[in-house]
Amino acid sequence: MSQIKALMFDVFGTVVDWRASVAREAEAILAPKGFALDWPAFADGWRALYAPSMARVSAGERPFVVLDDLHRENLLVLLDRMGIAVLSPAEIDRLNHAWRRLDPWPDVAGGLARLKRRFILATLSNGNIALMVSLARHGGLPWDVILGAEVARAYKPSPEAYDRAAAALQLRPDECMMVAAHIHDLRAAAGRGFRTAYVHRPDEFGVSPEGRPWPADEFDFTVDSFTALADRLGG
Amino acid sequence: MSQIKALMFDVFGTVVDWRASVAREAEAILAPKGFALDWPAFADGWRALYAPSMARVSAGERPFVVLDDLHRENLLVLLDRMGIAVLSPAEIDRLNHAWRRLDPWPDVAGGLARLKRRFILATLSNGNIALMVSLARHGGLPWDVILGAEVARAYKPSPEAYDRAAAALQLRPDECMMVAAHIHDLRAAAGRGFRTAYVHRPDEFGVSPEGRPWPADEFDFTVDSFTALADRLGG
Repeated sequence: MSQIKALMFDVFGTVVDWRASVAREAEAILAPKGFALDWPAFADGWRALYAPSMARVSAGERPFVVLDDLHRENLLVLLDRMGIAVLSPAEIDRLNHAWRRLDPWPDVAGGLARLKRRFILATLSNGNIALMVSLARHGGLPWDVILGAEVARAYKPSPEAYDRAAAALQLRPDECMMVAAHIHDLRAAAGRGFRTAYVHRPDEFGVSPEGRPWPADEFDFTVDSFTALADRLGG
Repeated sequence: MSQIKALMFDVFGTVVDWRASVAREAEAILAPKGFALDWPAFADGWRALYAPSMARVSAGERPFVVLDDLHRENLLVLLDRMGIAVLSPAEIDRLNHAWRRLDPWPDVAGGLARLKRRFILATLSNGNIALMVSLARHGGLPWDVILGAEVARAYKPSPEAYDRAAAALQLRPDECMMVAAHIHDLRAAAGRGFRTAYVHRPDEFGVSPEGRPWPADEFDFTVDSFTALADRLGG
């Protein structure tokens, strides 16, 4: 592990709690208009449209578009399904930018500050550059560099997303460690030669009585926080 | 000026003192091998090959290549001209990476810390991503995002370099301010609709008795340091 030079972070779910934050933002905009919804379910419904919309890009069915635009298209689908037709275009934009105001999990700031002493900290998210910059300023996230889908012009888990992130830093894949709360992301990164760290985020999709299962022991590190990752990596 | 959301910085000469730093790095590698050169002149000679090498890319005579690679090609030309044939490929790489270890001017850290409170801080340099990340970590530069030639796949002063930087942040050009010590860079940015701030760096090319002339009053701000820019912008 001593050759690792850069940590590359998934962001939605791994760094920030998108579900609670989107629920809060949706409530702030829609409750004053008389809607009383299950706000976390609203966030889940929006999120459920995310993977299929990126898959169309990855399959070559449409040219690359940034995630902000996919989020907006998906929001229009969701609002239509729910029969919500009261929002102006400016209000839709504001609601769409809920994804730029997501709060980090509590261990993130302390963990990143320690890890930054020793490693290059990069985002390797499907979020676009403007969105990542907003999240970083909102949450005080000390990234050295914003990489990911917009820089690579490819969405994870496409191989190009990982390959181009390592290439942008002029690093070999085994000098890069993918940090994510999602098994499919880590497996795709490992398939391109990255090291991997799984971070357990049991509440990403809401608190459930039985909890989220831990993965089998297939990654280089399996931890429950960024501070635990810093303990393991010596940051 | 109240609509400005992002400051986009030229780096070589504006943020960092490339001449003194490259001179120091060249001396550290070549002096132990018995060379006693005019080290600042060595830096100047290397730098003189920079603009013509980028111009070939901008003219479409060759595909886009990152600045690290142009620097290395130019170093080989310079070493050949000077009859220096004692360096191994690894030593040439190390000398080439002198450009990743450039020191900031003394006002930079304090000025950027103030400006960051209010504005997105982006690099808009011809340097590549890995080089910019190294400089930031070397000099403690708190960029929010690394933009510029490698992200745009175009070298300044090509219009695409400016247009794509604003687009990456989803900002209008007049929400972006180019900060540079070079008139041609600022004029090109203004031509794409950016606001402009000239920062006077009289010693960039060495101390001369008569000093470097100040430009005519053609930019939105004309200052002598990043702290003076923070005074003017209210950061």
